[in-house]
Amino acid sequence: MGKTVNVATTGTGCSGSDLRVDGERFRANFEALARFGQTADGGVHRPAFSPAHLQARRWFHEQAERAGLEVWVDGAGNHSAQLRSDRAAVRTLLLGSHLDSVPNGGRFDGALGVLCALEVLQTVQQSGISLDVNLEAIDFTDEEGAYVGLLGSRALAGTLRPEDLESSPGNHEAFIDALEQSGLTKASILSASRAPTLLAGYLEVHIEQGPRLAGSGIDIGIVTSMVGITRYRLRFLGRADHAGTTPMRARRDASQGASAFALVARDMVMQEYRGCAVNVGNMAFEPGVFNVVPAAVDVSLEFRSPDDEQLQRLESALVKQAYEQAKHFGLELQVERMEAIAPAPMSAAVQRTIEASSQALGLKHKSLPSGAGHDAQSLATLCPTGMIFVPSVGGHSHSPEELTHWKDCVNGANVLLHSVLRMVGFEQAS
Amino acid sequence: MGKTVNVATTGTGCSGSDLRVDGERFRANFEALARFGQTADGGVHRPAFSPAHLQARRWFHEQAERAGLEVWVDGAGNHSAQLRSDRAAVRTLLLGSHLDSVPNGGRFDGALGVLCALEVLQTVQQSGISLDVNLEAIDFTDEEGAYVGLLGSRALAGTLRPEDLESSPGNHEAFIDALEQSGLTKASILSASRAPTLLAGYLEVHIEQGPRLAGSGIDIGIVTSMVGITRYRLRFLGRADHAGTTPMRARRDASQGASAFALVARDMVMQEYRGCAVNVGNMAFEPGVFNVVPAAVDVSLEFRSPDDEQLQRLESALVKQAYEQAKHFGLELQVERMEAIAPAPMSAAVQRTIEASSQALGLKHKSLPSGAGHDAQSLATLCPTGMIFVPSVGGHSHSPEELTHWKDCVNGANVLLHSVLRMVGFEQAS
Repeated sequence: MGKTVNVATTGTGCSGSDLRVDGERFRANFEALARFGQTADGGVHRPAFSPAHLQARRWFHEQAERAGLEVWVDGAGNHSAQLRSDRAAVRTLLLGSHLDSVPNGGRFDGALGVLCALEVLQTVQQSGISLDVNLEAIDFTDEEGAYVGLLGSRALAGTLRPEDLESSPGNHEAFIDALEQSGLTKASILSASRAPTLLAGYLEVHIEQGPRLAGSGIDIGIVTSMVGITRYRLRFLGRADHAGTTPMRARRDASQGASAFALVARDMVMQEYRGCAVNVGNMAFEPGVFNVVPAAVDVSLEFRSPDDEQLQRLESALVKQAYEQAKHFGLELQVERMEAIAPAPMSAAVQRTIEASSQALGLKHKSLPSGAGHDAQSLATLCPTGMIFVPSVGGHSHSPEELTHWKDCVNGANVLLHSVLRMVGFEQAS
Repeated sequence: MGKTVNVATTGTGCSGSDLRVDGERFRANFEALARFGQTADGGVHRPAFSPAHLQARRWFHEQAERAGLEVWVDGAGNHSAQLRSDRAAVRTLLLGSHLDSVPNGGRFDGALGVLCALEVLQTVQQSGISLDVNLEAIDFTDEEGAYVGLLGSRALAGTLRPEDLESSPGNHEAFIDALEQSGLTKASILSASRAPTLLAGYLEVHIEQGPRLAGSGIDIGIVTSMVGITRYRLRFLGRADHAGTTPMRARRDASQGASAFALVARDMVMQEYRGCAVNVGNMAFEPGVFNVVPAAVDVSLEFRSPDDEQLQRLESALVKQAYEQAKHFGLELQVERMEAIAPAPMSAAVQRTIEASSQALGLKHKSLPSGAGHDAQSLATLCPTGMIFVPSVGGHSHSPEELTHWKDCVNGANVLLHSVLRMVGFEQAS
């Protein structure tokens, strides 16, 4: 970055700073893609490897081929389209996101980032600008975790471990079948890693999935860090007793410890851990019937922080609270740490590049952490990585209500375009 | 009751007040019965219509036939053994309970009452005492509700409605199969009702299933009333949101209302509703995953009181609290009243009879409500009904840990015997 590159403009001979994506083509592509797996309520249902997801990926490749881009699928099923540099460049700048969705999700999450990438490649291609990096639009496999979350991006980054492929929380057999039908194997997935020396960086446009940008009239979010996410299963253990004949004071009711913990965890985070989030996503009761005092309640606990040190403090505080609430109600507690994803800071240089691009385009921007995980967090340790957020109306996501105004989608694509040009030094040169 | 009856003593010529059950025979029967469906941990698994349950019922009939009692099965599958009065009595005094168990239950719940009844019939038979009522030991069908709770006793009382047979919460097809294999039909079940004019009363010995008697050294519990039981499904409705990107204060988290309600309900009952019980037996979360704010939580709520007016006050208070907690956390609430069983007071005259019998036998006794439902509650509206409780060690029930000391089982059988004699006026006459 910051490196001045000699650029030969050919074709339309457009100067870099005036360059904009083709909003009409971009929108037509968006509408076409949203038809794969479309649901009656305006969303899409495209879990990884579902027929609709595979159709969407094929469509992406067809569009890219029609535009004269080179396409291929790697060992992890990642679908790429490349605009090869005419200057025999060694390094590649990746632009991407994912075409899979959560079950009954929205049209924007992931899809927007892949379409922005494709649009930037076509815009640069048609502008006749010559860059000394290859530009690659990439659609990562199973970001949402139908089988293995961030599968494609972690495989590319070389951080996917063999055991990650053995513990798909859904149906492992279905996962194996899905791989087979796509011509993939566990070995091919693990061989999809790329050398960092060949990568110039990774940029991703994504909807914010939260209300901060839309709520304050900001056009562009510059992601500072991807939150770390820690998951626990807390098992509050009491004793099954007859719910009529056992005196109230003699009960060891697992529901009480679990309930008290759920309330305390939220209060604690809201009062003492600003910028963090906590969620009790599930409680599973045993035996779970009207007339038996709950013997056990399994609590699914997840908490997030953009800061590693804060995440660890929060973890200690939550576990301590769980033990205290269990003790208060005469219960035992079993604690299982399920998963821990460290916070992933975005490249400071790339953040400055996105900021400069937003400013040049006259867009209001704001730096903010991402509360969600994204493919960018897999890439962050591999190469200079940045993320561009566009506003989510009402903050909704993972639902058919997901909405980003079209002008914001176009803004995102243009910020991506100009960040690419700045990252390879073109804007300074033009 | 209280009616003096001329009694001819024959056979052993035993005087009524000295009469005792045969503890050795009683115990041998208890041990033999506990083998049907026995589990490795010392309990029994005899859900209604299971092979072990059907074997136990056949064994009961074989024992009764061997003793020269008349046996039959009614249209509801209730298994009876009768000691017919030699005085052409019209009325029958029913003594009974049930041979089915909860899944992986204990050896005492239900079984003890049927064995006490059989033992009393054999004791009276061998004593040569002549009564002017028929004595009938009855084993009611499906007390525990494998398919339809209190099926046999409600059928006999004529309070079972056709619709009760359509909504078996388990597998309705399995229920129909079970009926067919036992030669029963829905019509035969509904035809099993008996005329109250033919019944002199109903007496049942049962383990307390709570710790009150065993905990205070009392031998016999005289049941004053069967608690009323009301069940609700409370659906706390929030909004599914991304658990990372939605600010804590913007969430409408259904877990919070449900948890706060579970805590408040217990506190309220312990502080303001002595003698009542409340249980949040289950919470079902939707979507119930780590990374989505719970959109809905279905709470299974059950509460009990021995007093009808108190039960209604408690119901109002709990529903009001549910609405308040929902409102406090910005949630909607859907309220569904699932089931309501009114409290069933036991006959005051029968209670006095049990008390007099306990006193005459030198046993410490205590009047107390039953926190659990029993076949006796079905009979309470039909004929003079009473229940005799014996102590449960540790208060455990519906589990293999269920235990009643053998001397307490014998005490229960003897109190039943003398209550029978008093109910038909024999003790006063002898």
